[in-house]
Order: sequence, then C-alpha cells, then structure tokens
Amino acid sequence: MVEWSITVVLKTTVPRGTGGSNPSLSAHKFRSPLIFSGFLLFKCIYAKENLKTNIMKSFKSTAWLLPQPVLIIGTYDKEGKPNAMNAAWGGQWDMHEIMISLGSHQTTDNLAVNPEFTVTFATADTLVASDYVGIASGRNTPDKMQKAGWTIEKAPNVNAPVFKEFPMTLECRVKQKIDESETGYYLVAEIVNILCDEKYLAEDGKPDVEKMKLITFDPVHHTYIQLGKSIGNAFADGKQLK
Amino acid sequence: MVEWSITVVLKTTVPRGTGGSNPSLSAHKFRSPLIFSGFLLFKCIYAKENLKTNIMKSFKSTAWLLPQPVLIIGTYDKEGKPNAMNAAWGGQWDMHEIMISLGSHQTTDNLAVNPEFTVTFATADTLVASDYVGIASGRNTPDKMQKAGWTIEKAPNVNAPVFKEFPMTLECRVKQKIDESETGYYLVAEIVNILCDEKYLAEDGKPDVEKMKLITFDPVHHTYIQLGKSIGNAFADGKQLK
Repeated sequence: MVEWSITVVLKTTVPRGTGGSNPSLSAHKFRSPLIFSGFLLFKCIYAKENLKTNIMKSFKSTAWLLPQPVLIIGTYDKEGKPNAMNAAWGGQWDMHEIMISLGSHQTTDNLAVNPEFTVTFATADTLVASDYVGIASGRNTPDKMQKAGWTIEKAPNVNAPVFKEFPMTLECRVKQKIDESETGYYLVAEIVNILCDEKYLAEDGKPDVEKMKLITFDPVHHTYIQLGKSIGNAFADGKQLK
Repeated sequence: MVEWSITVVLKTTVPRGTGGSNPSLSAHKFRSPLIFSGFLLFKCIYAKENLKTNIMKSFKSTAWLLPQPVLIIGTYDKEGKPNAMNAAWGGQWDMHEIMISLGSHQTTDNLAVNPEFTVTFATADTLVASDYVGIASGRNTPDKMQKAGWTIEKAPNVNAPVFKEFPMTLECRVKQKIDESETGYYLVAEIVNILCDEKYLAEDGKPDVEKMKLITFDPVHHTYIQLGKSIGNAFADGKQLK
C-alpha cells in the first residue's frame, strides 16, 4: 500500500486587533481524510485539465526515435585488416538477432567478402574514438584503426575484431540483407556469442550494465548522453497498478 | 591541442637524523618532458598489456543489445478504444522510418484493422504505468488504459491516441510487415509527424532530450536505467583524432 502524506500551504487570516500574529502563510499537514480526498481529487482534475491544454509542437518526419544506441561495428577486410564504424540506426530484432541500417561503407565492402562482425556499445571512456570511427571512412583512411587507438584481438567465435577497451561485445553473423542496393541495406544478423570483460560483471556473474557508463545518441541535438542509474524494475514495478 | 598535465605520487626518502621531516609521501608535478614522455609511454604499454590479458567471459546468444529503448505504442481498436503496449525491440530503420519487433498482442489486432499508431518514449515520471502496459494485456484487461491513468487525445495526423504525460510522440503509419505469421511480425513504419510538448523544448525550439528524463531497458537485469547528462558532441569530438 502506498501511504499518502502531503503538506500544503494555506493562507490563514487572523483578524486585526486580536493581538495575535499578522496575516501569514502557515504550513499545515492534512489530517482529515475528507479534506485530503477532496484535495487529491482537485489535484487530479487540475493535472488532467492542465495536460489537456498542453501545447504540442509539430516537427516534420525525421530520425528522432529516442534514445538511440551507439553501436560500434567491427569487421575484417579480405586481407584481415580490421575496421570499425559507428551506427545509431539499429536495435534488437528478435531473441537471437539484431538489426542495423547500413549505408555503403568499408564495413559493407568487408561484409561482402566476410559475413561476420562484432558489435560493441560505446561508453563515456571510448566516446572520442567511437565518434572518430563514425566520421573517418576506412575507405580513404588507411591508418583509421591506429588513430582510434584500440587494442584489437580476433573474436573467439567469428572472423571479426574485438576492441578490448569496450565492456561488452556481440559476436555476429549476417543472416539477411533486406532491400540491398548500391546505397546499402538493412542488416539482420544472428548473435553467435556474447563477450563481457570480467571487470564489468555483477555479483551474479552477469554483465552489469550500470557499471559500463554506456552512451546513447541524441539525434535532435547530436550529442552523446550517458546512462545514469537504474530507477526501476521491468515486469515488476507495473504490478502495483494491476 | 590537448594539454597534458599529470600529478603522481613519489616516495621521497629523507635520511634519518637530518632534522628534517620523516620519510614521507609527497606529491610532485612532473615538469621534465623527458621523464613525462617516459612515464606516458610506460603507461600506454602497461594499459595495452593489461587489456590484452583482460579476461572475457562468454554468454550464450540472447537479446542483449545495449541499451534498448522503452517504446510505448498507442493504437485504437475498431471501436476507437485506445490501447498501449511496451516494446524494447526496435530502433530507427531509416531517415523517415522506424522498426519494431512485434509479437501477437491487442496492438497487432488493432493494427490489422487500423494501420496507424503512435510511439512515445517512457520517462522516469511515466515508468510505473509504462511497465504496467507491458505486463497487462489489452486482450483480457478491459480497463487497462484507466489503470494506466494517462490523459488520452487523438493524434492530429493519424488515427491513434496520444498519451499526454509523455514529452515526445511519433505519429506513424504501417509501411511493411516483414515475416508476418501468427506469432507476429517485424513492423516497419513511416514517421508521419512528430509531436513535442512545448515544456520540453530547448532554446532553439527543438526537443530537449536531456530534459525528458528518458529511461532505457537493461535486458540483462531487467531494470530501467535513466538517461543522465550529455557528455559529448557527435560528428565533432572525434575530429581531434583526425
């Protein structure tokens, strides 16, 4: 049960000349259930009326789904040279699959010859280089990965690089290329295995997402917003309304 | 240019009997470029070696893309009765389109007769009811939306409900149902228009994502993690590595 307690400010007028205090603002704690219920009802109606008159501004259709992940895709070219790119248009597709919207990049060239890759998630500590791999193209920057400066190792289960500065990495294999054209495709890929640096494990042995200092992409103002604290439990907190 | 400055702790031994201070730990600021460069080099090599030996724990394939959005999908049934559901498997598909992985729900029943909907983004303030609409089914909970308690208005451009407690809402129209079966489909939808409550606009008149107190879904421990602060600029911060 939720216990209600609310403090409101009432204007109490004391008649002049009574020798008492001046007209003043005093804080009272509601004790009467009747007055309290009345107040709550008023508050609800007032809030609803307020929301009904909220002004909504319209914006033209654009890519403003919120928030967007900062996915770092790792691939090898046909000579085994590693590359990374940054993508925000993607998400979970099904229990064992992810989706990423891909343009035409060194990554698409690499996936054409080697359909395996890694996906890792950018963090506060990897922000600068994660942004860099999104603005420099592997097609015309031969030393791109040297400039990014990450420690690279081959993934254990797929032919793709793991960037060891990142807490968690999905090892993936291309499953489907939807609407493939010269300008790219929508990539659906199987998650083959998941790697997590042991420094980022919770006490139960599973990855601790809060520890990772993950960042998200704000597509409106083009900033990176860091994740904060866990503030609720899914499939649980809503039960109080059942 | 990044200016380097680092403070390290050196153990300075003062011989006994000099009448000076006892052997102690003193803080010194490196001034010598040679010593400093040597220290940096050591630090880099040490960090890289450390990363090379980082132990990575493997986990079986599961839906752990990070972080996931908390999408609230609003639809009307054939009688115009509103419904909402909660989905985390989705993302931006293209400049004017989003993707959501949908099971079989009241929402899919509603979209079959009326292919328009809204998508809004759960916040700290709407967490409990957002979780509730994910655990109660509109198919067997006739008063689901009363229990959620949101203020509902018809969207201006599509035949779907807007939940006014949320800062920003996409008005959407079904474009494609991929792999449709009895168990659901992957929904690709056109963003027709975007609504933002004027309380959540930045000074430039565009939505202020930081103000919204958005939450994300942590699929590992099933918690909701709130977004924190902007800590960087996309397409900008990476330029320092070019």
